[in-house]
Amino acid sequence: MKNIFADRMYTVQRSFIREILKVTEDPSIISFAGGLPNPKSFPVDAVASAAAKVLRENGESALQYSTTEGYLPLREYIAKRYAGQGLKVDASEILITNGSQQGLDLIGKIFLNKGDMVAVERPTYLAAIQSFGMYEPVFRDVPLQDDGIDIKALDRILSGNRIKMFYSVPSFQNPTGITYSREKRKQVADVLKSHDTVFIEDNPYGDIRFMGEDLPPMKYFLENDTITMGTFSKTVSPGMRLGWLYASGDIMDKLTIAKQAADLHTSYFVQRVVYQYLVDNDVGQHIKMIKAMYKAQRDAMVSALERYFPEGVGYTKPEGGMFLWVTLPEGISSLDLFDMAIKQKVAFVPGQAFFVDGSGTNTLRLNYSNSDEAQIEEGIKRLGRAVKTLIAEKATVQISKIS
Amino acid sequence: MKNIFADRMYTVQRSFIREILKVTEDPSIISFAGGLPNPKSFPVDAVASAAAKVLRENGESALQYSTTEGYLPLREYIAKRYAGQGLKVDASEILITNGSQQGLDLIGKIFLNKGDMVAVERPTYLAAIQSFGMYEPVFRDVPLQDDGIDIKALDRILSGNRIKMFYSVPSFQNPTGITYSREKRKQVADVLKSHDTVFIEDNPYGDIRFMGEDLPPMKYFLENDTITMGTFSKTVSPGMRLGWLYASGDIMDKLTIAKQAADLHTSYFVQRVVYQYLVDNDVGQHIKMIKAMYKAQRDAMVSALERYFPEGVGYTKPEGGMFLWVTLPEGISSLDLFDMAIKQKVAFVPGQAFFVDGSGTNTLRLNYSNSDEAQIEEGIKRLGRAVKTLIAEKATVQISKIS
Repeated sequence: MKNIFADRMYTVQRSFIREILKVTEDPSIISFAGGLPNPKSFPVDAVASAAAKVLRENGESALQYSTTEGYLPLREYIAKRYAGQGLKVDASEILITNGSQQGLDLIGKIFLNKGDMVAVERPTYLAAIQSFGMYEPVFRDVPLQDDGIDIKALDRILSGNRIKMFYSVPSFQNPTGITYSREKRKQVADVLKSHDTVFIEDNPYGDIRFMGEDLPPMKYFLENDTITMGTFSKTVSPGMRLGWLYASGDIMDKLTIAKQAADLHTSYFVQRVVYQYLVDNDVGQHIKMIKAMYKAQRDAMVSALERYFPEGVGYTKPEGGMFLWVTLPEGISSLDLFDMAIKQKVAFVPGQAFFVDGSGTNTLRLNYSNSDEAQIEEGIKRLGRAVKTLIAEKATVQISKIS
Repeated sequence: MKNIFADRMYTVQRSFIREILKVTEDPSIISFAGGLPNPKSFPVDAVASAAAKVLRENGESALQYSTTEGYLPLREYIAKRYAGQGLKVDASEILITNGSQQGLDLIGKIFLNKGDMVAVERPTYLAAIQSFGMYEPVFRDVPLQDDGIDIKALDRILSGNRIKMFYSVPSFQNPTGITYSREKRKQVADVLKSHDTVFIEDNPYGDIRFMGEDLPPMKYFLENDTITMGTFSKTVSPGMRLGWLYASGDIMDKLTIAKQAADLHTSYFVQRVVYQYLVDNDVGQHIKMIKAMYKAQRDAMVSALERYFPEGVGYTKPEGGMFLWVTLPEGISSLDLFDMAIKQKVAFVPGQAFFVDGSGTNTLRLNYSNSDEAQIEEGIKRLGRAVKTLIAEKATVQISKIS
């Protein structure tokens, strides 16, 4: 059979990151490539107790079909947490999804016709490009600055085009680790208010702030026409695949229809078990433990970068989340660095994958959440050596070109 | 904001069935409307043991992210079961999904451009219309006969149009309970071989045959360009949301890309727990118990229909699965019957929802898997009374029209 697939399948590719992850499965490699939470943080025993309790007390119900919207007490729990951040929210505004990744797919599905324009950060989360990409939009990217999106560039792009939605990770962004300041959040809300653009707030890391001032989600500054995505992947377990969408009115109605067509509902067993875990345990204490763990790992990485990386290499110093972002000198390719680093048994994700136009060739993403301090010290040392070698080689090539 | 949604969202509707299910949530109603397995059949204790074991022995791993394709031992288990039915199959041909419903969405996503043609049975599974409908195809329906699809009509439709895929539920179809005979399976394979059409075999009920001769899946007769969908929803638990797609080569490659973009992977915890359940228990014995339960319920329903329904009403006598199909005399509306039946505290699904052109107004679907024999006796008795009343009313109207 020829040309049997839909047009959309000829444009999308397998995730570059997942392909890289296969290379790095070799256990002798120190990998800063993945985006995995530290499994030592998983509340295994507490989840076991929760699962046992759910099956003992409500077994038949937990194994039966359920509603598309999700388990009501879980939705109420999520709504209550947002209320604690100053938001006016009802459980009917929460839709349970299979991790926030499914939220991306459902959002793409309800909004995007082929050729519609989507604004994203520059760089942006790779899987969002993939998910939205299935609906064949045109991407427009807006540069990120140290304190969030470039407001003037955002306003210019929204004014000059019919942008259907603006996708953003305002807190501890993947890939850069950058967080929008309070001022930036207000400015973004102001800009958005004057345009017919839906704001998509992806907030998987918001709970994992280990330094600086806690900030409310963007939804707080821009209540209408904002969809906020959340997940239990970073605070309880990613393997459960449990997230949610927070939206209202017509948008929530359409999201629910799309969810129903996509898979009827998220595993009810998983919803019940995670809910039981949440109500039976001191989750605040658990998240505190994760923060302490990641802060130590982040500090180890920043410290190692200071010691082992040469002048002229820039990097972010995130206040939360799981990633930091390195910018090599112009003309130094992170793909070349990757090849060199793999030989020295250390891995990362070349930054290019996070740019919708394939630029960013001198950038890379480092994950610190899934390596211990000793691995970070050793891995960054090796990587620093590789960076220095690459810069030296480049200089030699340039000198030989001149002479 | 105006017109913010994608075109597809202006054509799809919430599932009529799910709306009906809301009406029938009243516990005093005897409901033949849903498509729920009998929760008494759920292996609650065995699942509890499996969950405890997984978390005790592989807790951190079971709660971590995993591969898009699914847990390899589970895929091997599924492949081995197909091998037992005479199929040449490798675990790499199995992709784990969130129930088979997600399989429908992924299939729609990889194949369908707007306006592409999809052949379906007449009547067909409602959720397939919904899922595929998201990709805006044009449906062509092919009549079902007692032993499966109308072969001549199928050949005519495939010859006269560029049909991208033919979607079928060959065993104990939802909604009719009809099963393709061995001869029909061969004939369908022959017809398909001479056309550029992908065959989509949805087989959620295949394991639940309680009468007649076991038949191999369609994939056995038509190996290439067939995608077979399976699920643990009817044999273990629907609330888990665990199913799979069985396909090869390029098609599997594209399905995997679509799955990755949709939600990264199906709950790894669920996959591990269900796999543990499958290997630690006598699943054959468990399915035998389900079959015996559903056969008794099916027999009770057929027997009650014989006793309480008037002449001129037809119904199928399924050899497996969860549904049977009733055809009222021409001109008798099952929507009118629904209104009347609800007043008598009995519910079903009017058949119209299962026709892509909104016909079938004199048909209805009855579910027997989720009612016990006493409820079936009483429910069908009430329904028979309502049918008789409706036919009598209709006759009176006609007489008064004549006179």
